[in-house]
Amino acid sequence: MTDEQERRERQLVERVVASFDGTPDPRLRQLTQALTRHLHAFAREVRLTEAEWQQAIGFLTAVGHITDDRRQELILLSDVFGLSMQTITINNAAYRNATEATVVGPFFVADAPLVPLGGDISGGAPGQPCWVEGTVTDTDGRPVPEARIEVWEADDDGFYDVQYGDDRVAARGRLVAGPDGSFRFWAITPTPYPIPHDGPVGLLLERTGRSPMRASHLHFLVEAAGLRTLVTHIFVRGDALLDSDSVFGVRDSLVRDFEPQPAGTPTPDGRDLGDRAWSRVRFDIVLAPR
Amino acid sequence: MTDEQERRERQLVERVVASFDGTPDPRLRQLTQALTRHLHAFAREVRLTEAEWQQAIGFLTAVGHITDDRRQELILLSDVFGLSMQTITINNAAYRNATEATVVGPFFVADAPLVPLGGDISGGAPGQPCWVEGTVTDTDGRPVPEARIEVWEADDDGFYDVQYGDDRVAARGRLVAGPDGSFRFWAITPTPYPIPHDGPVGLLLERTGRSPMRASHLHFLVEAAGLRTLVTHIFVRGDALLDSDSVFGVRDSLVRDFEPQPAGTPTPDGRDLGDRAWSRVRFDIVLAPR
Repeated sequence: MTDEQERRERQLVERVVASFDGTPDPRLRQLTQALTRHLHAFAREVRLTEAEWQQAIGFLTAVGHITDDRRQELILLSDVFGLSMQTITINNAAYRNATEATVVGPFFVADAPLVPLGGDISGGAPGQPCWVEGTVTDTDGRPVPEARIEVWEADDDGFYDVQYGDDRVAARGRLVAGPDGSFRFWAITPTPYPIPHDGPVGLLLERTGRSPMRASHLHFLVEAAGLRTLVTHIFVRGDALLDSDSVFGVRDSLVRDFEPQPAGTPTPDGRDLGDRAWSRVRFDIVLAPR
Repeated sequence: MTDEQERRERQLVERVVASFDGTPDPRLRQLTQALTRHLHAFAREVRLTEAEWQQAIGFLTAVGHITDDRRQELILLSDVFGLSMQTITINNAAYRNATEATVVGPFFVADAPLVPLGGDISGGAPGQPCWVEGTVTDTDGRPVPEARIEVWEADDDGFYDVQYGDDRVAARGRLVAGPDGSFRFWAITPTPYPIPHDGPVGLLLERTGRSPMRASHLHFLVEAAGLRTLVTHIFVRGDALLDSDSVFGVRDSLVRDFEPQPAGTPTPDGRDLGDRAWSRVRFDIVLAPR
């Protein structure tokens, strides 16, 4: 590149940055100026062609047009570039042995039914029964009594209840941990499912040789007074998708043993599962201070 | 930031980059991996909050939804961040004394009427008459005979013909330079106008204290065999908006003297303008080799 070309490109970046100097809100000024520098650095580094710029505009236009009240393709786009997970990572700073956070995803529902400790959250969702137990503690190992625990997951067909478009409530529930911080409940063994991939983001995944599948997981949201709210998943050790989760939600520390229990194995609470196999998993949750 | 936090954020970036390793097309691989690095660098540098991420998703959703066949808010967004101009700059490398390129804008029309040399492109568009003349040469100063010259501009009310939604053709035309590379035509003196600012991009400009106005300009597209096609504007020296053009199209080398001519000043071609003032400008165009 000639000096004159370098000068023109740099001068343009500085002019755009300077155009935001008068932004009244200092944070918005910081965000717009930093975004300018990084977007221009990208375009300059790859020597973006005019045809590629046109294609990018066309792609983002399609992403915008498929997005509606039920389908948020822009969030999917953020997800598959790992930006959603990076935002979660930035805002849930590592703290000693506190459990790591991961993406919330689009299927959390605020008013899930209260399920007693030891109860069943599955609500009839198809899937293999899974016994989940653990204790909520702080980072000094002290039990956190009566933490609010929200759990939700997809069923064996790969769908969350809210995706069916009827009013079913299944495979989700709210529990309150005991005075000793312990919790236990029946759920279903998590299975993998794809993110919506019939739109532009699906096409991007296809063109880049990537899978739309999410590694099998069970969502948790855990809240307790004075402690940092945790939004996370647990994943299934041995799942072939752990290294290719389409939204980069997997953290090694969140992978758990879902121990298979052959049909007939006595259940922890005496529940009679007949001739069905089941699984069990332990997830001890450590909350950081707020 | 703790080492562990740094490790988590970096590891995430590397995982996303690695997810594109299998992209069959090497250029698409390069683009997605570079975009990943720059987007994550932005989020990490500004420590993007979850609320800000949500606001960004909401903003881009609005940008997508207002975009239709007649309104391209995503291009506007690219424009006001200077990305459109940077793409033009990257793809029109500085070459000796070749005339600089600038943004094409959304109002070019492929089949503009042919206007003879010395003719009037205004087509009745409201505005002060302006005599435009110059010569097309290569970078060695040799005249380029019979270059195709497309010119277009907004009228005094700030609108291009195609924005009226009727079938008018005004303030645009196609000329063919003479055997000696010279050209001349009547147009109207350029005046400033705003980019569409009643949508999310307009709100962004407002929140960042920026003006939606474009500096006054006249568009050119110049094509000749064996030479690099030039898309550019000329700007009006003295225009107060030269330093705050909303899409960063102004290059110092493209600012020209539009000399005011009081009413009654004889015109170059003897045209009788009655009691109207007019202006004149010279624009010598230098085309780079292809």
